[in-house]
Amino acid sequence: MAKKTSQPRADIGLIGLAVMGQNLALNIADHGYKISVFNRTTSVTNDFVANNPNTPGGLVGCNTLKAFVASLKKPRKVIILVKAGPAVDAVVDQLIKAGIQKNDIVVDAGNSLWTDTIRREKEYAAKLKFFGSGVSGGEIGARFGPSLMPGGDKTAWKHLEPIWKAISAKVDRRTGKPLDDYAEGKPVKGGVPCTAYVGENGAGHYVKMVHNGIEYADMQVICEAYQLLSQLGGIKPDELSKVFASWNKGDLASYLIEITADILQQRDPVNKRNFIVDKVLDTAGQKGTGKWTAVNALDMGIPANAIAEAVFARCISAIKDERVAASKQLKGPRTKKYTGSKKKLVEMVRDALYCSKVCAYAQGFQLMAEAQKEYGWKLNFGSIASIWRGGCIIRANFLQKITEAFKNNRKLPNLLLDPYFKRKVNAAQANWRNVVTLAANHGVAAPVFMTALAYYDGYRADRLPANLLQAQRDYFGAHTYERIDTPRGKFFHIDWPHPDRPQEKA
Amino acid sequence: MAKKTSQPRADIGLIGLAVMGQNLALNIADHGYKISVFNRTTSVTNDFVANNPNTPGGLVGCNTLKAFVASLKKPRKVIILVKAGPAVDAVVDQLIKAGIQKNDIVVDAGNSLWTDTIRREKEYAAKLKFFGSGVSGGEIGARFGPSLMPGGDKTAWKHLEPIWKAISAKVDRRTGKPLDDYAEGKPVKGGVPCTAYVGENGAGHYVKMVHNGIEYADMQVICEAYQLLSQLGGIKPDELSKVFASWNKGDLASYLIEITADILQQRDPVNKRNFIVDKVLDTAGQKGTGKWTAVNALDMGIPANAIAEAVFARCISAIKDERVAASKQLKGPRTKKYTGSKKKLVEMVRDALYCSKVCAYAQGFQLMAEAQKEYGWKLNFGSIASIWRGGCIIRANFLQKITEAFKNNRKLPNLLLDPYFKRKVNAAQANWRNVVTLAANHGVAAPVFMTALAYYDGYRADRLPANLLQAQRDYFGAHTYERIDTPRGKFFHIDWPHPDRPQEKA
Repeated sequence: MAKKTSQPRADIGLIGLAVMGQNLALNIADHGYKISVFNRTTSVTNDFVANNPNTPGGLVGCNTLKAFVASLKKPRKVIILVKAGPAVDAVVDQLIKAGIQKNDIVVDAGNSLWTDTIRREKEYAAKLKFFGSGVSGGEIGARFGPSLMPGGDKTAWKHLEPIWKAISAKVDRRTGKPLDDYAEGKPVKGGVPCTAYVGENGAGHYVKMVHNGIEYADMQVICEAYQLLSQLGGIKPDELSKVFASWNKGDLASYLIEITADILQQRDPVNKRNFIVDKVLDTAGQKGTGKWTAVNALDMGIPANAIAEAVFARCISAIKDERVAASKQLKGPRTKKYTGSKKKLVEMVRDALYCSKVCAYAQGFQLMAEAQKEYGWKLNFGSIASIWRGGCIIRANFLQKITEAFKNNRKLPNLLLDPYFKRKVNAAQANWRNVVTLAANHGVAAPVFMTALAYYDGYRADRLPANLLQAQRDYFGAHTYERIDTPRGKFFHIDWPHPDRPQEKA
Repeated sequence: MAKKTSQPRADIGLIGLAVMGQNLALNIADHGYKISVFNRTTSVTNDFVANNPNTPGGLVGCNTLKAFVASLKKPRKVIILVKAGPAVDAVVDQLIKAGIQKNDIVVDAGNSLWTDTIRREKEYAAKLKFFGSGVSGGEIGARFGPSLMPGGDKTAWKHLEPIWKAISAKVDRRTGKPLDDYAEGKPVKGGVPCTAYVGENGAGHYVKMVHNGIEYADMQVICEAYQLLSQLGGIKPDELSKVFASWNKGDLASYLIEITADILQQRDPVNKRNFIVDKVLDTAGQKGTGKWTAVNALDMGIPANAIAEAVFARCISAIKDERVAASKQLKGPRTKKYTGSKKKLVEMVRDALYCSKVCAYAQGFQLMAEAQKEYGWKLNFGSIASIWRGGCIIRANFLQKITEAFKNNRKLPNLLLDPYFKRKVNAAQANWRNVVTLAANHGVAAPVFMTALAYYDGYRADRLPANLLQAQRDYFGAHTYERIDTPRGKFFHIDWPHPDRPQEKA
């Protein structure tokens, strides 16, 4: 009997019992898997196991990594949920010392930089199968069904797949809408899981990063809509809540619009006569993944300006004291309050939000298209859009349309060119342009609405003024230029009359 | 006699005889300094010396690094002008082998990343004094007077200073305008040199990088002006040349505006009936320093969106084939040609260019202000602006105003708050807003005009919608928020009613 209890018995293990780790472990146990758990601080492990005695699969608390490794069925499957960075390497090294072997699978489920995942997969190849999985949906997602973006060795994926599919969010097979998971407190049966193999090595973490970059833009366009409607339209939070609730029934239906409607009606706990949103300080923080996306866009030369601008919008929000001081010194336009129809304003702003959102997503997919060239991945954009339909922060009906767009044309050069989105943006563009005009003339900052419009008009321009720029570069730096009437790759130079070159003046 | 010729005799040495290196060497020799020169390919050295027999200082051709080092007076001063990156380290290592000593000074005058310069100064500290100097002005600047941005050890600077001051561009002491160097083929006497000690280790290269980032924005706003005037106003290149020439007499007077006027009147060498600008392909290249600036802005959290957008504008120009294809599919607005006064359009666009330019410069100086905190530099912004007044690509009367702004207030929090610029932008903002409106309504991309306006309106907003964003982050991620009515640093959390959290539904 004593021998029997020391037999490996857990289906999977998890290291790192902060909230995300605890919730993911409970989610796994809920689906009938026995899961071993380990945390650096032993009491955290013990409390967690003691507080959750009756999960369907069962929790196995381990107080040493050696016991943890010994408790796992082979090939062992270990999820690591620790702070991205050196902590990941440290834990993997400890796992190796504790007995992890070559065919075992170690999954980094944190927000790691994809290049770290690529490096780690190579570095550990002789000792274990290192695997990366993006996890989106925050604490609630981890607990009740996240969107999971796995990347790494394909044979390793075969072992993970049943668990990933079981624990992920589910969407309706026909509509793509999130199923009302756990409505009865039990896992939902059926539906399409919000997970699918993304690609080799760092692909899963890369896609998760782009998800977060898009999330930045998604949140920022909602904020710009809120700002314009409250400042120009003078619409109060409770009325605005109804506006967002109504938008949530249309093309914009999404988790972020839904929670915005919720937030706007929420009263201030300190004084119920006020709305909480009016009392929250307007300085946004960031955790880095949006910035990574923008930096990567610059590095690859992909014009993801809507995502970068959303990052900058957070930066400018952060310098609140400077802004307050500047607001007393820098005058705005003379144009007074918006005097048009409030209903019309709401419609216009909705369309501006919609079009800007399409641009941000288009940019996100362009990033992935470029990255797959750089890293030799074979990404399926329809599949990626489909696993974002449920579980994650950016989940939206919209993603069903993107899924269909890439299903209809796997080689779609840009989301803006999909017939559906083309038609929608075309129909909405007049309002979008009106909103940019209103923002400019009333002095309300609308950075992503504006930059997305510049992207749209730049992308559909057969002629941009870079001809002048190339002439300038040839003028002062002899960088040469190409011509419109000769084949690409033929370079020309003019001996420009430099106004400050003496030999020209003599 | 034989002994005498082997005595050290050169004041300074230069390694790397590509065009920039040759021109800088000739500039130095023109000012009476004897300069030793070395190039990896011996024939390049020999040809260069043979072709320039009569410089005032004299060129000393060296065919080995040993001879090169031996030819230099102590403390030896060596300028390296090789490709940024590993080549710099390689040359320094070779110099050490060739006899460079601890008190000798090695100046990297290439476009090196400032963090490399910081690293190299430390790494070589026991063996030599590694020094970084930004050089701007292209080939012509190098030859006849560049803007020089030196950074490194202050005692090393004392040895370099006379030469740096001699060879740099000069501006008028009173007006700050570039003196007409070499008008007679000889170095100009008097004037203020466009060089000054910037700061420790990588400060010079950092400031040079920001210069280049600003240059990207400066060029892009000229391109946007050109695009709007030609597309909306239907103004042809020769007429546009006159517009830019007239702008060059006012607040916008600058090298880049001047050469734009030149470029626009230039005929196509292939067919003199055409203007060359109409025949240049509209795909812009980049060499990386603009991108570095934008990446650094993101890394430091400084909202330098005008600079980043200028980089993205080059990226979108580069996908010409995609744009041509998209132009046939994506419709623009219904609004037809601009029907207003052409004269008024020119004025409005000039003002939009001016205001956007102020924002780009403001952002560049914000970057330097943040970097000096990070690296412990003591930058003098007035001095930095003053050394950009002549020699470099962004030289402009404008920089005299920036010099004065920081001279009047060394702790100016933002260029936009300087009384002069505040007044100018305030007077011009109505036109700026009109141009953004015109661009939006006519479907012409004006990314930097727009993003700079969003920056201006964001910076002067005492309230931005980041309150909603923070509420969203607290809602889905329990990130907490601060309040407007409690001291900063106190964090709150609401247990939001998550619509998909089962316990809330039960």
